[in-house]
Amino acid sequence: MTTTARHADRLLHAVRAGVEIYDLGRLLSIGMPQSPNHPPFWLTMPRRHGDMVRADGGSAANDLLVMGTHVGTHVDALAHVSHDGLLHGGADAAAAQSGGRFTELGVHTVAPMVSRGVLLDVPAALGRPDCPAGYEITPADLDAAVDRQGTPVEPGDVVLIRSGWGRHFDDPDRTRYVGHDSGVPGVGADGARWLAARGVHAAGADTIAFECLRPGQGHSSLPAHRILLVEHGVYLIEAMALEELARDAVHEFTFVLAPLPLFGATGSPVRPLAVVGRG
Amino acid sequence: MTTTARHADRLLHAVRAGVEIYDLGRLLSIGMPQSPNHPPFWLTMPRRHGDMVRADGGSAANDLLVMGTHVGTHVDALAHVSHDGLLHGGADAAAAQSGGRFTELGVHTVAPMVSRGVLLDVPAALGRPDCPAGYEITPADLDAAVDRQGTPVEPGDVVLIRSGWGRHFDDPDRTRYVGHDSGVPGVGADGARWLAARGVHAAGADTIAFECLRPGQGHSSLPAHRILLVEHGVYLIEAMALEELARDAVHEFTFVLAPLPLFGATGSPVRPLAVVGRG
Amino acid sequence: MTTTARHADRLLHAVRAGVEIYDLGRLLSIGMPQSPNHPPFWLTMPRRHGDMVRADGGSAANDLLVMGTHVGTHVDALAHVSHDGLLHGGADAAAAQSGGRFTELGVHTVAPMVSRGVLLDVPAALGRPDCPAGYEITPADLDAAVDRQGTPVEPGDVVLIRSGWGRHFDDPDRTRYVGHDSGVPGVGADGARWLAARGVHAAGADTIAFECLRPGQGHSSLPAHRILLVEHGVYLIEAMALEELARDAVHEFTFVLAPLPLFGATGSPVRPLAVVGRG
Amino acid sequence: MTTTARHADRLLHAVRAGVEIYDLGRLLSIGMPQSPNHPPFWLTMPRRHGDMVRADGGSAANDLLVMGTHVGTHVDALAHVSHDGLLHGGADAAAAQSGGRFTELGVHTVAPMVSRGVLLDVPAALGRPDCPAGYEITPADLDAAVDRQGTPVEPGDVVLIRSGWGRHFDDPDRTRYVGHDSGVPGVGADGARWLAARGVHAAGADTIAFECLRPGQGHSSLPAHRILLVEHGVYLIEAMALEELARDAVHEFTFVLAPLPLFGATGSPVRPLAVVGRG
Repeated sequence: MTTTARHADRLLHAVRAGVEIYDLGRLLSIGMPQSPNHPPFWLTMPRRHGDMVRADGGSAANDLLVMGTHVGTHVDALAHVSHDGLLHGGADAAAAQSGGRFTELGVHTVAPMVSRGVLLDVPAALGRPDCPAGYEITPADLDAAVDRQGTPVEPGDVVLIRSGWGRHFDDPDRTRYVGHDSGVPGVGADGARWLAARGVHAAGADTIAFECLRPGQGHSSLPAHRILLVEHGVYLIEAMALEELARDAVHEFTFVLAPLPLFGATGSPVRPLAVVGRG
Repeated sequence: MTTTARHADRLLHAVRAGVEIYDLGRLLSIGMPQSPNHPPFWLTMPRRHGDMVRADGGSAANDLLVMGTHVGTHVDALAHVSHDGLLHGGADAAAAQSGGRFTELGVHTVAPMVSRGVLLDVPAALGRPDCPAGYEITPADLDAAVDRQGTPVEPGDVVLIRSGWGRHFDDPDRTRYVGHDSGVPGVGADGARWLAARGVHAAGADTIAFECLRPGQGHSSLPAHRILLVEHGVYLIEAMALEELARDAVHEFTFVLAPLPLFGATGSPVRPLAVVGRG
Repeated sequence: MTTTARHADRLLHAVRAGVEIYDLGRLLSIGMPQSPNHPPFWLTMPRRHGDMVRADGGSAANDLLVMGTHVGTHVDALAHVSHDGLLHGGADAAAAQSGGRFTELGVHTVAPMVSRGVLLDVPAALGRPDCPAGYEITPADLDAAVDRQGTPVEPGDVVLIRSGWGRHFDDPDRTRYVGHDSGVPGVGADGARWLAARGVHAAGADTIAFECLRPGQGHSSLPAHRILLVEHGVYLIEAMALEELARDAVHEFTFVLAPLPLFGATGSPVRPLAVVGRG
Repeated sequence: MTTTARHADRLLHAVRAGVEIYDLGRLLSIGMPQSPNHPPFWLTMPRRHGDMVRADGGSAANDLLVMGTHVGTHVDALAHVSHDGLLHGGADAAAAQSGGRFTELGVHTVAPMVSRGVLLDVPAALGRPDCPAGYEITPADLDAAVDRQGTPVEPGDVVLIRSGWGRHFDDPDRTRYVGHDSGVPGVGADGARWLAARGVHAAGADTIAFECLRPGQGHSSLPAHRILLVEHGVYLIEAMALEELARDAVHEFTFVLAPLPLFGATGSPVRPLAVVGRG
């Protein structure tokens, strides 16, 4: 029947030759930094080993998970943001959410991604260890990263923008990463347009929001969300772990993302991967 | 710097030549079939569009997710099952779960998988549309599927065993798929040893448990869990959607799985992928 | 200062003379019957004794509670039901719920109740052990109960209507009490008007909804909710345990109810009490 | 039948003559101060009006509640604390919690309380507006309050100890009330013994824990919990609202408490009442 498949499939051939996997998802643990706009992460074991032991000596433990869908590393579905009452494509947001779920633009409609990914290492292009708090990453910065790396952005790519802010994720001060008072570096309206103009499929960042957050302003204005999610239908991936890719200067890779198909939801926790063939 | 990477990476080259992605995860929706042993799935929107509109006309909606980690398509971590008080590798289960989480064998220790996957289509090998309720899939059945397909199982593979029972997942009678009274087809102790002997990395099924469940017996005895999880450290993936792979006779593929790194948990909801290169 | 208070307080004097407390709340446990319209009840211990022992040998265990607010014995706030888009008092329901909570008519606005309570034992008045499935309790039935008991209903009273259906709450078949197929006895539109005409403050029942549910109809029409909650501002208390009051022929008592002040919610789980002085 | 009941019941007679109810429970809202040891409070509406409108124009909204049981105003069951592995009465804590719930000493075993309550207004006795952060309330302070008020504590009473710290509950700085760095005033080991010696049934406080918390020490040592819960079986009620009672100099009253009968849980959110007869 399909005995010839393995020989014809160059993808599988490359996989079998060996791959290196970069884990771009943050460890999900109680107390990790998250926005107070979203339900807190909690995880607990209703059943532990020994609670109910079967006649043969077997025992199972299990968990209860409670969390917002925009907590930890996560993807924003197009339903997440509206502007002037409209979602991407012009759908009326109030009508679309009737029933308590987004049948049309919910995260279950986000197709799994297996595609080219590009890391734009902005601090490296700027000759700095990281972008300062509140710094707006400009189109010039993005161009500089592309040039330095030799990785042009192409239509359909997933582009991950490193600001260096991700190193604060594990700071003992849980408010540091969220950065309400300090501000957080990121792409502003101009950078968002730069990405949209290149036809990217999704864009990611190592910050809690794919935005430049000004000191003390919080999420009062989210132009990159409007431009990318609402105007151009570009998915956003936030709170990514990008330090290892940068350390190893891996700027181009196979990007893999499989959001949980939560029917009607506005987002999903995810564990994105960057995969590099070693064959 | 790394400008040569894209040329050297045959994996990415294959991806860019085009891939077909089979989605092996079930849609996660309120009321879907699940075991009563696990906390029910619930999903709701704390914030809808219009609840809080920013000065610039922007608005965000979000979600609260509540669920067991062994609900919908999911992976079992090694911590999930113990036998005679011991986990895989001989760790004491009571000590390992102290603190309410498994630091050592929790699902956060399950490395993302990008590897060869094999579908063993048992009903096709048996010349039937599906395996009957309570049917035990035997080593002979597994051999027959391998032979018919020409897809030998190799060490490190992820092997997905189709029983055909997955078609009941969307049955209006939510108890049908769970199959407590009817029984559910699956691999028993012998089939589990067959898999373990071949050194598979993980094994999946289209049923709610990777087991042959006898009519009316429920989960009273789970030999495949014991043999695979506890004795051999083989991860289990349950409630998979395997019908499309079978329909298209895709028996060998690149298998991708990225469990949520839930610190200390016994399992994670997942959306596994089977990827086939078209280049 | 207030040393004279205790002598002046006849309430406290009566309490100190001895009271008998009837517990009208159902035990809240996983798997108890509830409507599928509401998030299921779940309860688990994140921390158990021994997980974290203090230097002095002390240890604390705690819980995580997940539930709908109309699960188990509960009270409906006026915000719970609207008719033709309007809440009690004519407020626009869509506007009132903006922000995801009812600032005005939420359950936090339900004042604690310490008042006269009356049990109307309808089966006793009918000379039956209980009302049959789907039976509509009529004004004539309510009059008969009042007459038999000698307990006229007065303005401000809390009236609890026993149908006898409460004995199914603990049925091993969890669908029995919900009674979708069988129907459930209760007050219909006429009985609701009877209560409203008497100016009751709240009304309770031993069924999952304060309604007569026809076989197979479920909650497709809820006239008592409309008349009592929306038109007359009468709170409803559901899934009450009324068998002990009936057994002891306690038809008049001090009724006590203290809903959890859940800000903006449509209901609250409660444990109502009927207190009888023994002094 | 029971027509004479109303005449014989002096309790109901007193209630009908008029009562004043003091609400001792805190408003439960997202973001309120709570200990990070417990799962955060969250409340959201899965269904809003308009999501599903019945043919007759009716619509229902409902809620999902997620919270720890020691969050907001709450009662501690005897199962909450162990010492040297033992619960109150000498039960082995590890055995008692097997199965993930406390069948014996869980909060469902806490009988509803309708009894004499006494407020001990410590700041008033000290001639201060409130007790300073970290202040230990001593037996001498408690004696002074009793003497000043003329309200001796008697066996079976519920004693509420006001420190004045409750005014910080609504502080915009949510960490203020928790008081980790500042410390929190409360009863220490000596005060706990004072209460135990008087045979009180339960004891309450206006702080997040019924303890004197030293600056920066958090919950590292909880002697009052040990003495009252473990050694003497006295229930604790925490995070109470006691300012109104103090303002009105109400030091003696009918205390009412009906914990949710959460099967096997270590605590329950509650809305305690102080009721004063006006007849």
